[in-house]
Amino acid sequence: MTRRRILPEDLGFLMTRASAILVKETNRAMAPLGLKVRGYSVLAAVCDEDDGITQRRLAADVGLDPSQIVALVDDLEGRNLVMRTIDPDDRRNKLIVATEPGRELCGKARTISNDVAERHIAGNDAEHIDAVRNLLHHMVFAN
Amino acid sequence: MTRRRILPEDLGFLMTRASAILVKETNRAMAPLGLKVRGYSVLAAVCDEDDGITQRRLAADVGLDPSQIVALVDDLEGRNLVMRTIDPDDRRNKLIVATEPGRELCGKARTISNDVAERHIAGNDAEHIDAVRNLLHHMVFAN
Repeated sequence: MTRRRILPEDLGFLMTRASAILVKETNRAMAPLGLKVRGYSVLAAVCDEDDGITQRRLAADVGLDPSQIVALVDDLEGRNLVMRTIDPDDRRNKLIVATEPGRELCGKARTISNDVAERHIAGNDAEHIDAVRNLLHHMVFAN
Repeated sequence: MTRRRILPEDLGFLMTRASAILVKETNRAMAPLGLKVRGYSVLAAVCDEDDGITQRRLAADVGLDPSQIVALVDDLEGRNLVMRTIDPDDRRNKLIVATEPGRELCGKARTISNDVAERHIAGNDAEHIDAVRNLLHHMVFAN
């Protein structure tokens, strides 16, 4: 069944469809690592902060609800990919830090995620791909 | 709280975040019409076929499960925006067709959806926006 080109000009629709395609495929490709895209994005955000990160900050970074973050961190912690530690600046606070196995797995997941995206944008000009990345940056980080 | 730039090169992550931002904002902007992005995409796909469309086809077009489509069509039908009719070529089949009020509402929703996207890409070169649209087209329709 060929896909009809509905809403071909609607950037929101196109972006939602394109991201759903990438997420589905990346989830499948990451299955051998026991990770899905969401768990990976949480792990990556934790790995990005050497001194640890609060759950609230993590939720803002990856764009999920704090309750979703708790479940994802629980899972990662149970697999020794991250640890919850006490914030030395405020002992009532917990900080999440990556473990060495967590960092290793994150590197592998990053390669998979990039490979999936590369396959989908293969054949496009490097210049166009840069334009896409820049526009997405602008949308995600400049608002 | 400023947003940290995690996974700044990850096209899948950027696209997922950007589409989530657009969906959230478009849902809010469409609330006065009683539509959300999903209902709108179903309505638009129906409006796009003058002779009606099957639920199976609709599911493929908008990238949702048939069960999700049934609920969305039920809602649209209850509001007289679409109708289920008998397929003249195969009387066991139902076809979904848009009503005149459905077409009118779809036009209004389309304007809203475009306006939200426009606000987010304002300030980008027209050429870059074309590049983004082309790449998304390629990802969504050429696979």
